[in-house]
Amino acid sequence: MSDTCFDRICIVGIGLIGSSLARAIADRGIANTIVIADSDASNLARAKILSLGDQYHEDVRLAVKDCDLVILCVPVGIMGVVAAEMKSELKEGAIITDVGSVKESVLKALLPHIPDTVHLVPGHPVAGTEKSGPDAGLKDLFVDRWAILTPPEATDQTAIQKLKDFWQALGSKVELMDAKHHDLVLAITSHVPHLIAYNIVGTASDLEEVTKSEVIKYSAGGFRDFTRIAASDPTMWRDVFLGNKEAVLEMLGRFSEDLTALQRAIRWDDADGLFELFSRTREIRSRIIDAGQDSDRVDFGRPHGED
Amino acid sequence: MSDTCFDRICIVGIGLIGSSLARAIADRGIANTIVIADSDASNLARAKILSLGDQYHEDVRLAVKDCDLVILCVPVGIMGVVAAEMKSELKEGAIITDVGSVKESVLKALLPHIPDTVHLVPGHPVAGTEKSGPDAGLKDLFVDRWAILTPPEATDQTAIQKLKDFWQALGSKVELMDAKHHDLVLAITSHVPHLIAYNIVGTASDLEEVTKSEVIKYSAGGFRDFTRIAASDPTMWRDVFLGNKEAVLEMLGRFSEDLTALQRAIRWDDADGLFELFSRTREIRSRIIDAGQDSDRVDFGRPHGED
Repeated sequence: MSDTCFDRICIVGIGLIGSSLARAIADRGIANTIVIADSDASNLARAKILSLGDQYHEDVRLAVKDCDLVILCVPVGIMGVVAAEMKSELKEGAIITDVGSVKESVLKALLPHIPDTVHLVPGHPVAGTEKSGPDAGLKDLFVDRWAILTPPEATDQTAIQKLKDFWQALGSKVELMDAKHHDLVLAITSHVPHLIAYNIVGTASDLEEVTKSEVIKYSAGGFRDFTRIAASDPTMWRDVFLGNKEAVLEMLGRFSEDLTALQRAIRWDDADGLFELFSRTREIRSRIIDAGQDSDRVDFGRPHGED
Repeated sequence: MSDTCFDRICIVGIGLIGSSLARAIADRGIANTIVIADSDASNLARAKILSLGDQYHEDVRLAVKDCDLVILCVPVGIMGVVAAEMKSELKEGAIITDVGSVKESVLKALLPHIPDTVHLVPGHPVAGTEKSGPDAGLKDLFVDRWAILTPPEATDQTAIQKLKDFWQALGSKVELMDAKHHDLVLAITSHVPHLIAYNIVGTASDLEEVTKSEVIKYSAGGFRDFTRIAASDPTMWRDVFLGNKEAVLEMLGRFSEDLTALQRAIRWDDADGLFELFSRTREIRSRIIDAGQDSDRVDFGRPHGED
């Protein structure tokens, strides 16, 4: 067991992120015991079949007992409820963290239920796929991705450092950030992109002049790219939008304003304006690839024969 | 040489689609001679280095001479200019087609320059990547993708059949469609998706509260998916939007209307409404995968270690 290890880690919620964590922790030997909690009996049974942990509990109170690190991997809308349930059973000195995509509202939901004897260090690994559930987890999901920690002021520095070490042991890079700033950054890099993906898939499905089977047949023209993130977990995303309302509405306002300008440029044949924007956006992709945040394979590496 | 072959095929414009065609035709032995035309000398030189054809001409008039099939692979905004240039040199009985993403305006641009002695059968392979230029071509780009033909009424049936056979020989499925309907279908499956991808990348780049390096670092939250198509060729896409103005503005209007409703649902905490939409959009992705129009690999098959 290395310095970055915990004796007992409890993962609460064994969906895509929870089960990726369980796999990643086991793979890297970061805990002596992995305890898995999920109030959904079928998820828990599936986790057991997949041998994702060492102990399994439907009751979160039994699960968190004696654990040194508790990671909440439930939808952000029920973080508070889960924290209220488990609070009396938390071990003194334990670190409590979460993986929620929203940080200000989660902090507000958790804080009233966190005893003074434990350390709350909220977090968010910026990683995922469009799949859900215990089977969807990937042991290398966090490698080269960023984990953002948003500890409130006066959080114990040792606890922060231990959680930093934990994410780094899973292959992540770690950044500390204010919760409010996190929510603004993620609104534009994650939440609004999901919203417009959901939206265009909805628009396309509802058309009368174009059949659904035409939408599907000709989706390789660009539409299919959006359907991937629009296939993400509905509960998780409902909670994200309601939990980060202010920043999402602000960024959505900017997006719509820009889209209106673009619409006007098309209507008035502003060829130069269109060309200028379309040239400018090209650069961002190459910077993302250079930063190791996407693969450089053409078309995301989709199969195109042997070329 | 099989029944579906042409003796001489001329490809005008050796970018992503032109060079994919050259590779696909050579690979499947569909022409005795491939003639490549490009008014850009450096593109043409690159095509020669890559051995994409048998003959190379900067002057399209020399290129199309004696060709049985001429495929225009230039941006839709200059189709008319190119057709005007080459018209006097077209072989009697030749088939002229194109690969433009817009069909009504291209038909209008081409028609005045098409002699009665040749057959015009406009087309559009719904396939591509975010890359441009002669190096970007892939010999299997058209496999399992749809090629849409939009021949005007009274087009010679034999010519249509020959072009159908041609695309099928490249691995494509073929559909015949009215040009106006094509433009409406592609507006929602391709043009508006590109527009909103360009738009959100633009919005994200222009923010003051969120730095560009933050946008790049946390792009794995969803944003990076949009940057791929926002890296597509600026000239091509400028011409598409200006060439399919009516349908794009119509579909964009629907998209914005739906987005406003979604914005309102977030503002008023309409949890059920959000959940309902996010559940409904999931189904489309699985139908696209079932139809063979996208890979079923998680996260488009992006690398996630060995899982």
